[in-house]
Amino acid sequence: MELLQALRSKNPLVYNITNEVVTNFVANGLLAIGASPVMANDPKEAREMTTHASALVLNIGTITQAQKDAMFIAGKEANERNIPVILDPVGVGVTSFRTKIIEKLLEQIDVTAIRGNIGEIVTLGDQVGQVRGVDSLATQIDLATAKKVAKTFDTIVLATGETDVITNGNEVITCKNGHAMLPSITGSGCLLSSVLGAFLASGEDPLEAAAYTVCSYGIAGEQAAKKSAGPGTFKTNLLDMLYQIEDSLVEENMQITTTSED
Amino acid sequence: MELLQALRSKNPLVYNITNEVVTNFVANGLLAIGASPVMANDPKEAREMTTHASALVLNIGTITQAQKDAMFIAGKEANERNIPVILDPVGVGVTSFRTKIIEKLLEQIDVTAIRGNIGEIVTLGDQVGQVRGVDSLATQIDLATAKKVAKTFDTIVLATGETDVITNGNEVITCKNGHAMLPSITGSGCLLSSVLGAFLASGEDPLEAAAYTVCSYGIAGEQAAKKSAGPGTFKTNLLDMLYQIEDSLVEENMQITTTSED
Amino acid sequence: MELLQALRSKNPLVYNITNEVVTNFVANGLLAIGASPVMANDPKEAREMTTHASALVLNIGTITQAQKDAMFIAGKEANERNIPVILDPVGVGVTSFRTKIIEKLLEQIDVTAIRGNIGEIVTLGDQVGQVRGVDSLATQIDLATAKKVAKTFDTIVLATGETDVITNGNEVITCKNGHAMLPSITGSGCLLSSVLGAFLASGEDPLEAAAYTVCSYGIAGEQAAKKSAGPGTFKTNLLDMLYQIEDSLVEENMQITTTSED
Repeated sequence: MELLQALRSKNPLVYNITNEVVTNFVANGLLAIGASPVMANDPKEAREMTTHASALVLNIGTITQAQKDAMFIAGKEANERNIPVILDPVGVGVTSFRTKIIEKLLEQIDVTAIRGNIGEIVTLGDQVGQVRGVDSLATQIDLATAKKVAKTFDTIVLATGETDVITNGNEVITCKNGHAMLPSITGSGCLLSSVLGAFLASGEDPLEAAAYTVCSYGIAGEQAAKKSAGPGTFKTNLLDMLYQIEDSLVEENMQITTTSED
Repeated sequence: MELLQALRSKNPLVYNITNEVVTNFVANGLLAIGASPVMANDPKEAREMTTHASALVLNIGTITQAQKDAMFIAGKEANERNIPVILDPVGVGVTSFRTKIIEKLLEQIDVTAIRGNIGEIVTLGDQVGQVRGVDSLATQIDLATAKKVAKTFDTIVLATGETDVITNGNEVITCKNGHAMLPSITGSGCLLSSVLGAFLASGEDPLEAAAYTVCSYGIAGEQAAKKSAGPGTFKTNLLDMLYQIEDSLVEENMQITTTSED
Repeated sequence: MELLQALRSKNPLVYNITNEVVTNFVANGLLAIGASPVMANDPKEAREMTTHASALVLNIGTITQAQKDAMFIAGKEANERNIPVILDPVGVGVTSFRTKIIEKLLEQIDVTAIRGNIGEIVTLGDQVGQVRGVDSLATQIDLATAKKVAKTFDTIVLATGETDVITNGNEVITCKNGHAMLPSITGSGCLLSSVLGAFLASGEDPLEAAAYTVCSYGIAGEQAAKKSAGPGTFKTNLLDMLYQIEDSLVEENMQITTTSED
């Protein structure tokens, strides 16, 4: 698999409707890895902007009324055009406002992948009636919950944590790459969601592409951390590493397990 | 006083309704020092978000109609729950639009601390009828003005400048830490306001905590400047230093004077 | 010409109504080079804010309804007060929404300079009926198009690309400074538009000032690239270089040609 090379040769346009905390970091991260970012929040241009895009990323972090309207318009157009839609359910469960938006998005838009931290995926699992194991509250994702969420919404789930879990509801891939510095900078998850959009735009098998995304990103984080004295230098070095990383480095350093249990 | 250690062991959630120029920097700065940031601007979730928070920071830098509504809702809930509210009156006096919003916020919300630069605090002093000394226009804060503002609004005032002034209207603490590079990056004051929220959330004496905040922050700035060739590297190094700074370093380097004059 | 020194001694206030992806970077870049940035998006303060400013920059990257209203109010006040107005037509032609806003702004506001990438200037040229050469689609600007746009809107055009073109419709200056890393970070063009505002605020001949701006900025980029391992360090170093750059370095390194063809 040379998915980084494929991404860079395609240079996909990723349309992000995302939160105002991370716009700059997400745009720079997408440019660094070889994609083209665009942000546009007005519903009046959401449909037309989607026609130019190879992937759509919806992130509700600081959603405005205009963004909400734009998300439904862009989401439907993306479905129509059969381009991947990635949903980042930031803070689902923290307020009922967020929970309801996520519910409605999942009702009306076909989502190719949901990327959230373990707590967010567990919250989604609770909403679909999945009983959690106690461990899931701490640092381990309940695999059954992730699978249930994936099956319920007919999507890929990418749950990030100490161990990342990627599942389509049947197959489960886990990835142990990454670094403790990643959650110490804001938007590291949001950028991962957008990078996932860039990889899914290349048209490979989505489950494999999602696993490759999270491993590549984690390895970039590992390399960046080696040179960093704190979160300031880490953020800077992460962008450099996303720019420098090659498929060969990913393949040498991937820490991945695959299980298929039906 | 081991206030940094206390902050880090509490890891307080600081809810920021702040300007779009600084969201990323503020979130990263709060993470670096050991707090958890959240931003949310929709009035529909402002009350519920406040119920999760340990401090609320209101910054009017690029205020929108939604943010304005959210500030009053969140502010009242914060008062109800008795969590600290920090007001950053960015550009008060520059436009009457900003001046009126600040007046109304100070009328309707009990504010634990006001953090502004010297010009902003002097502007607030003018509005409450305080006659200024001429020096206050330059680099020195008129102590009487700061005290008057603190008394009028029954709050702590933290006025930043070459010498920082912290007062509750009776006691006055001055701090000489800091570096000329701090005002050369955007949002250094805004981040200080949010870091003040994180320190005040620990429940210590607020005047002492405010003085400790501005000294710690100034010392982090001094250390960052030593390694920096300009504002780009300074911004990066400041985040690293907020992550690395320990109480022992603060106590060794604090340049503080306290006077109580009634 | 000592335009950097003139800029720094004036320390002009540049009022930016710009996109949410780049606010932080633009503010830091303006501070670095020696100007003062302000951002304000509410139409209720747009007129009053303009009265304090020495230049106005309008950038439609992620325009909101409030920003659109504020742009017309601020633009008219800027014309009234005779301060320079810089227009950055981000993504004109990509959606009809953006195209219409740009048309209306150019109808109602006298614009001192339009700063865009070559594709954006070519799009504006198409709208005014200019027939393009085929090369313009690739990396070379059609000089005739840039001149036609400048004449049509009675403005200076600054079209950035591998070779930058600056024209008032009669004279044409080209600049070969710059570095391939500049387009690899988001907002490098947006910041250039705002830096142009800072230079034009000094009241020199606008065509010369525009050429000096793009050369200085390009040279800062060249210097920054020498020390950078990727776009993360490049962004950091670019801010450092904008802070350090002096007129002598610009004059030694400018790669400029001037032609006057009527």
